[in-house]
Amino acid sequence: MSRVIEGGVTAPQGFRAAGVHCGIKKPSTGSANLDLAVIAADGPVSAAAVFTTNRAVAAPVIISREHLAGSGGRVVAVVTNSGCANACTGAAGVQVAREMAAAGAQALGCEPRHVLVASTGVIGVQLDIAKIRSGVEAATRLLSVDGWSAATRAIMTTDPFPKSCAISVHTPSGAITVGGMAKGSGMIEPRMATMLGYLTTDVVIDPPVLSRALKRVVDETFNAITVDGECSTNDCVFALASGRSGVTITRDDDPAFLDALGGVAGHLSREIVRGGEGATKLVTVRVTGAASQSDAWLAVRTIANSPLVKTAIHGGDPNWGRLIAAAGRSGAAFDLGRASVLIGNVPLFVEGVPHDERADVAAEILRGTEFGVTVDLGTGGAHEATMWTCDFSAEYVRINAEYRT
Amino acid sequence: MSRVIEGGVTAPQGFRAAGVHCGIKKPSTGSANLDLAVIAADGPVSAAAVFTTNRAVAAPVIISREHLAGSGGRVVAVVTNSGCANACTGAAGVQVAREMAAAGAQALGCEPRHVLVASTGVIGVQLDIAKIRSGVEAATRLLSVDGWSAATRAIMTTDPFPKSCAISVHTPSGAITVGGMAKGSGMIEPRMATMLGYLTTDVVIDPPVLSRALKRVVDETFNAITVDGECSTNDCVFALASGRSGVTITRDDDPAFLDALGGVAGHLSREIVRGGEGATKLVTVRVTGAASQSDAWLAVRTIANSPLVKTAIHGGDPNWGRLIAAAGRSGAAFDLGRASVLIGNVPLFVEGVPHDERADVAAEILRGTEFGVTVDLGTGGAHEATMWTCDFSAEYVRINAEYRT
Repeated sequence: MSRVIEGGVTAPQGFRAAGVHCGIKKPSTGSANLDLAVIAADGPVSAAAVFTTNRAVAAPVIISREHLAGSGGRVVAVVTNSGCANACTGAAGVQVAREMAAAGAQALGCEPRHVLVASTGVIGVQLDIAKIRSGVEAATRLLSVDGWSAATRAIMTTDPFPKSCAISVHTPSGAITVGGMAKGSGMIEPRMATMLGYLTTDVVIDPPVLSRALKRVVDETFNAITVDGECSTNDCVFALASGRSGVTITRDDDPAFLDALGGVAGHLSREIVRGGEGATKLVTVRVTGAASQSDAWLAVRTIANSPLVKTAIHGGDPNWGRLIAAAGRSGAAFDLGRASVLIGNVPLFVEGVPHDERADVAAEILRGTEFGVTVDLGTGGAHEATMWTCDFSAEYVRINAEYRT
Repeated sequence: MSRVIEGGVTAPQGFRAAGVHCGIKKPSTGSANLDLAVIAADGPVSAAAVFTTNRAVAAPVIISREHLAGSGGRVVAVVTNSGCANACTGAAGVQVAREMAAAGAQALGCEPRHVLVASTGVIGVQLDIAKIRSGVEAATRLLSVDGWSAATRAIMTTDPFPKSCAISVHTPSGAITVGGMAKGSGMIEPRMATMLGYLTTDVVIDPPVLSRALKRVVDETFNAITVDGECSTNDCVFALASGRSGVTITRDDDPAFLDALGGVAGHLSREIVRGGEGATKLVTVRVTGAASQSDAWLAVRTIANSPLVKTAIHGGDPNWGRLIAAAGRSGAAFDLGRASVLIGNVPLFVEGVPHDERADVAAEILRGTEFGVTVDLGTGGAHEATMWTCDFSAEYVRINAEYRT
């Protein structure tokens, strides 16, 4: 995989960004104040997006879907606010999201359908459109290539750190760059749990090809992570392509482009897990020996979300029984007599028989902050899947339960 | 529902029980020592069971299934040990479970296929059959009508309290009684997470009818509870019918019998949740307005297992947004614009619109230890489902992560 470099959504040519404080978040010191971000291209560029599958969709998701369809995948800007999710806000909330896009269009001199919107924050609270309008005007005036950092901070809620990166790769036709930023499922307030991702690139690409490439990459990155198994009302991943590199991508499986796009999306995804609520460890969960691809996903998803697995990992316990029990209840085809478990590269359960001889080595691995666990389902099938998860700590409970005390 | 009375598996005539210490659990003081229970009828009686759906099934589940099929649902005794689950123990473990049933048969003078077995405790450790044999002999000598209490304590692991009860109901043909005991998902050691239930009754009933009635009752009781969404390798619910009341039950939907059987199973189920790891609240989650029965179960199961919902409840927060987000991601048909949420009887979200006026009353309800929450999916459908769950506390994480520190 290509090397991840510092930078963000303005790393590819043709994009500017800004982050400002417009008053949605309560006043505080420093960059924690920022609550409105704009990413803008110089004119309509190819765009694609993947949205939450939650049927309780937030108003900005409804509007962004509508605009993306109405413009045929041509976008000038993405406007995002943090501090209020504009979710479960009824028809009034949808109208506010529509006006948020219109404010962006007015400030940038484009059509509203060329503006996408996203929100993250408290559910069930109306978004103050007057604040958004003034924020959009201020951010638009500040748009710059250096603005990626402020934009990244302006989409944060309780994310413990900002998440931005970029990758450049060389192709026979020239260099291409992908940049990106994301926010994870942190919470500063009770009713927040949102993942937002933004990918920019300078390739020349038609919206349908970009859309398929994005879907392909998201399935193995943003859709392959979990902090607590929850899927929010506001989740979105956006991709915008300025075409400035002059390198044309015609296939959604173009290796160089997928390398860069997947590299940025993968890095940002893992950063979201690393910054998950109460997380102290980044764990790569791999399932092998599955009878089908859907079985592999079923088993890996069940293991990666299991509270007993995640608490055992938090406690540094090489508790392979919990991994087996989770795989067994997942619904995937499973042969206990031929199943195996590895912590790192240490086998603890091999073809149905416990091997606790090296449990102390496994425990040492689990004391680290980044490692893998592997479960072979024992079916003899060749399918496998990988997800990234974090451990489950008392801090997670504290964050989500005790904020009012 | 009929009144739950004190008593246990010997409340119906025709059953005796005993609980002894045979050395599987480490020595300690008092009843925490007990680790082997026997429930016995005077001869082969009608029996049925429901077993874990986990594909990593423990050895005793394999043997009990085999014996129940081989005897045509005729059982003399159920032998249970705590302290070792005999799960993930390979072919050797299956042989031990077989010998455990044989030991019961020898002590009671019946055929091995008339003895069912169950184990709960550490996964991946071989069960010491010599200890089991001496325990079975000792327990068999002690069998009595008063033994229900010791038997109940002998199946406990870290259950904070024993769970036993009985119900008698009057039918036109005479009184019938159902007794029962259960252990929940407590853990004294890391690799334990097991639910076991035992129901006895004095009705005259054929095994297939008993089996269908049991299935019917279990679906709305033991299968409608959750502590952490985990399904163990050892879960079993057994039902034995002595016939001593002389009252014949011919239909699996007999109202009086279901009332008593469901009453005992329901009480024991809720006791398991109340005694769940780290639990401080017993929460009845009800989903209404579902388009189908499977949708109702899908939504109620997702809500009852949601870490964000369970932590909000722990914190006493009337956070209806998390209930809506869980329902929305469940996969059930869901209409946000017509969905509603109630905490107790207080509506906080009505047909797609937030109603936070009485949030303080809802918060007061949540400060209690037992209450209900209701989510209407807004589809206009008439299907509904109910589950019992507990809150999610830092204590749960501590129990499951920090036992080695």
